[in-house]
Amino acid sequence: MIEHLLSAADLDLESATLILDTAKEMDAAMSGREVRKLPTLRGRTVVNLFFEDSTRTRVSFEAAAKRLSADVVTFSAKGSSVSKGESLKDTALTLQAMGADAVVVRHSAAGAANRLTGWLDGSVVNAGDGTHEHPTQALLDAYTIRQRLGRLEGLRVAVVGDILHSRVARSNVALLNTFGAKVTLVAPPTLVPVGVGSWPVEVAYDFDAVLPHTDVVMMLRVQAERMNASFFPSAREYSRRYGLDGARLARLPDEAIVMHPGPMNRGMEIAASVADSPRSVIVDQVANGVLVRMAVLYLLLSGHKGGAA
Amino acid sequence: MIEHLLSAADLDLESATLILDTAKEMDAAMSGREVRKLPTLRGRTVVNLFFEDSTRTRVSFEAAAKRLSADVVTFSAKGSSVSKGESLKDTALTLQAMGADAVVVRHSAAGAANRLTGWLDGSVVNAGDGTHEHPTQALLDAYTIRQRLGRLEGLRVAVVGDILHSRVARSNVALLNTFGAKVTLVAPPTLVPVGVGSWPVEVAYDFDAVLPHTDVVMMLRVQAERMNASFFPSAREYSRRYGLDGARLARLPDEAIVMHPGPMNRGMEIAASVADSPRSVIVDQVANGVLVRMAVLYLLLSGHKGGAA
Amino acid sequence: MIEHLLSAADLDLESATLILDTAKEMDAAMSGREVRKLPTLRGRTVVNLFFEDSTRTRVSFEAAAKRLSADVVTFSAKGSSVSKGESLKDTALTLQAMGADAVVVRHSAAGAANRLTGWLDGSVVNAGDGTHEHPTQALLDAYTIRQRLGRLEGLRVAVVGDILHSRVARSNVALLNTFGAKVTLVAPPTLVPVGVGSWPVEVAYDFDAVLPHTDVVMMLRVQAERMNASFFPSAREYSRRYGLDGARLARLPDEAIVMHPGPMNRGMEIAASVADSPRSVIVDQVANGVLVRMAVLYLLLSGHKGGAA
Repeated sequence: MIEHLLSAADLDLESATLILDTAKEMDAAMSGREVRKLPTLRGRTVVNLFFEDSTRTRVSFEAAAKRLSADVVTFSAKGSSVSKGESLKDTALTLQAMGADAVVVRHSAAGAANRLTGWLDGSVVNAGDGTHEHPTQALLDAYTIRQRLGRLEGLRVAVVGDILHSRVARSNVALLNTFGAKVTLVAPPTLVPVGVGSWPVEVAYDFDAVLPHTDVVMMLRVQAERMNASFFPSAREYSRRYGLDGARLARLPDEAIVMHPGPMNRGMEIAASVADSPRSVIVDQVANGVLVRMAVLYLLLSGHKGGAA
Repeated sequence: MIEHLLSAADLDLESATLILDTAKEMDAAMSGREVRKLPTLRGRTVVNLFFEDSTRTRVSFEAAAKRLSADVVTFSAKGSSVSKGESLKDTALTLQAMGADAVVVRHSAAGAANRLTGWLDGSVVNAGDGTHEHPTQALLDAYTIRQRLGRLEGLRVAVVGDILHSRVARSNVALLNTFGAKVTLVAPPTLVPVGVGSWPVEVAYDFDAVLPHTDVVMMLRVQAERMNASFFPSAREYSRRYGLDGARLARLPDEAIVMHPGPMNRGMEIAASVADSPRSVIVDQVANGVLVRMAVLYLLLSGHKGGAA
Repeated sequence: MIEHLLSAADLDLESATLILDTAKEMDAAMSGREVRKLPTLRGRTVVNLFFEDSTRTRVSFEAAAKRLSADVVTFSAKGSSVSKGESLKDTALTLQAMGADAVVVRHSAAGAANRLTGWLDGSVVNAGDGTHEHPTQALLDAYTIRQRLGRLEGLRVAVVGDILHSRVARSNVALLNTFGAKVTLVAPPTLVPVGVGSWPVEVAYDFDAVLPHTDVVMMLRVQAERMNASFFPSAREYSRRYGLDGARLARLPDEAIVMHPGPMNRGMEIAASVADSPRSVIVDQVANGVLVRMAVLYLLLSGHKGGAA
């Protein structure tokens, strides 16, 4: 198995499948219990090292660690020694010395999680590094798709929106490709990264043309501050061309599902009626996030060395 | 029993008495133990969802939940997806999906706790919603009065200060009335709400005239920023007319007690000597706050369905 | 034994030795266990009362308390009732009433921890009060020296940097003197406190002259904002005269060790190569910090009354 979880691109099919299967076992193990906790990681310490605010992701990892009976310590950069100029290296050495068995890190710089591994004996989980990767998001998305549609291989997935700045998109492209799904990126040309030609995807600019041939629509969050002249003329125009509303929902095949990593801008990239429709699995994604993070912490910390064996 | 605790006005005499009696049992159960914790809510998750800062209330609920062995996760609005524009509904759905068994919510808008119940399967506890209600404060106040004076029925309670903006006053008026106490509001006319005529209270403007006929004086916190021309001429004038000092304390009947929800402005609405006098039960209120919140979480989460039975 | 830990100057040789020995036992007790937790303080509540931000110190105490199975509640002054004008006394009475068994306090005012003891039945641990004291830092430093060099008595310790503003220096001078070590303060004249003549130390201004006669070099953190005309001409000049670089490291005796309380300004008071050299025990200091704080919490809370016996 893996020692760290830095990137969805690092996961081969076996490892990725093991994580999803373990998450499913976690769910089964807890649902059979009066007390919805497993004693697996008692005495282990998980540190949430957040250089960027992200209450949702932090709380999801915290809930996952506590369900496994681990102790959780939050180390947020605000007001910490980091704001006094401490280097990432010294922060890492400090956490290591305090006995962190795993460090879950969110950082604004691509590669921050990778650099941490050089200074820590414990495991590092990348909870988002700049515009680079957010692998547990891709894993929970894959879990949710498999849960609803029974498989990943051969499915047609449309990832729609600001691909350029999205670590969620990067991680999903890598993982979905590993699982054998076919990804189409749908975005205005200004929000498609240079170099996308080397990605294992197709790129489309006309959302409506893609819809009838899609099993999964994955909407990305729009950052309002990027809706300006340099990227896109206006929020209204964006919503009109790339938003998922009821009319577009109706053009999807009957079995297709709708996803969003949250937090949503209802009425912007996704209509409220779509977010709340029976085809939306957005709430399942959140619930599965806790399971997948339990599985990742468990596999990293419990000394499991299977996988390629 | 109740499913949520949104408002003191929702509690009938039986439910309210059950909460106070349960709090007393909690106290007895813990005082007989080497380890001052009860295993009752092990494996349950309580989320503190605080859109307004309130360290005192948050810490009291956190202590209560931990004494019952629940896991506690704090979700404060600052830096969260809320500040990125997420709706209250989506925050609720997220917490629900993460497995929150109870959500304790503090919000600046009246009715926020009520709205949450529409989106959550778990229980909602209102920890203060705007100027509307703060029911656990009224419950701990009632507990404290009963503890000191042996009963609530027939007691004469004066609530003194900024009634207009006080959720503490609103919750206390409702609950004290349910328990059969007689409430007199004492305030400058500009700090009495329009519509108070329909409340089950008397209103007085002369604090000194009320004192000799009072068993419990409940002082409210003064918000310095409201001490301006539109509400009241000055802080000094307020203190002179509505502050509880040693001279006024001496005018109370021998058995009367003094309460304050905290945090106090010593020297403003209450003199330091009064806050520290043997008649002050202010510290008891804090201690009882933990017990009452334990009782509420226990009754909401342990599947107790008694009450009207 | 002591009831509170307010000042390193309060500790006699017996008490200080007991703390270090207990920390060593904690280490041994945990290393023999599958689950690295001790059940010693289950049901006890430790409150971290932080009026100043200090993530490192807060997390170290939190890790220590959790390893002893205590419940930890953080009460930070930001956004708390303190910011609404509540007095330190009322904050103390509140924590007391909520059942705090120990309060770990960080405050900008010298003497704040002492004042708290007047209002709390529980134990108070000073985690830094203004420029006064930071006793657990001195204890972890002493533990680290003893661990590496086998003893404290007779050792020559140089404390280098901004002595004037350093609580770390004050606590170390007191504790090292109790242990029989010989302390030399090395600093520019403007950063030496008036009244240092009454301290049990020597004062030197020439770092290079001191180095060959030193067993332990303890570098202090430079506060960049103090590097101005009134204290010192410039950061660069400070670094040239009082920074520990590779050349100065080479002038130390072979066995000498290098310490720093963190967070470091690499390249300023200490060169990166020195911080990472085998003679640096900076990471050990962090690890030992958790052990020493476990020992302090254990001795204060478990009712141990030995020491002078």
